[in-house]
Amino acid sequence: MPAVKLADLPVTVVKPGVERRLAHTDRLMIVTVDFSNGPQSEPDPPHAHPHEQVSAVVEGEILFVTESERTRLGPGDMFVVPSGQPHAIQLLSKRIRLIDCFTPIREDFLP
Amino acid sequence: MPAVKLADLPVTVVKPGVERRLAHTDRLMIVTVDFSNGPQSEPDPPHAHPHEQVSAVVEGEILFVTESERTRLGPGDMFVVPSGQPHAIQLLSKRIRLIDCFTPIREDFLP
Repeated sequence: MPAVKLADLPVTVVKPGVERRLAHTDRLMIVTVDFSNGPQSEPDPPHAHPHEQVSAVVEGEILFVTESERTRLGPGDMFVVPSGQPHAIQLLSKRIRLIDCFTPIREDFLP
Repeated sequence: MPAVKLADLPVTVVKPGVERRLAHTDRLMIVTVDFSNGPQSEPDPPHAHPHEQVSAVVEGEILFVTESERTRLGPGDMFVVPSGQPHAIQLLSKRIRLIDCFTPIREDFLP
């Protein structure tokens, strides 16, 4: 099923206010993450994974945090995360939609 | 520069009405493509590439076309393209924003 209507995808409730929907090829995964639990008063704890990640902010505002930067990002802005690099986000608005892509695929995200 | 403000990125004018802005890690590329030259009366000719691709529609409406399907996609919808699979899109609205991700990176897209 190469074309994927968002409304037809199974939703994973990561935690209350955080929903994840995804599709993937062999080595590439796209994840739509919808947050309705912002804003946060501080960033999540930093996390890291061997997967390379690229992301885009579709809706809302976040703070993107690494060991060396804290950058406010809004709709259209992007961030990239090399393999193993610690990173975190802080939700700055109530509602946020992110597109996260990973290679290799996040086996831990598969339903 | 892990955080990327869209307004700070160099723009590549692919052709009049089609602008591309991108960021990448070693093996993963994210490309924001802004179309202002729609709608089209028919799909582009199919194309294929060895890169795996996943994409999301952020704004506007497209028809996603492969040898086996023609599916109308709007904001939030996604499509995935395995390595080597012919695919095409048809612009159904004047303005469209797509997020395209590729592994490996599209060396041909680098400025």
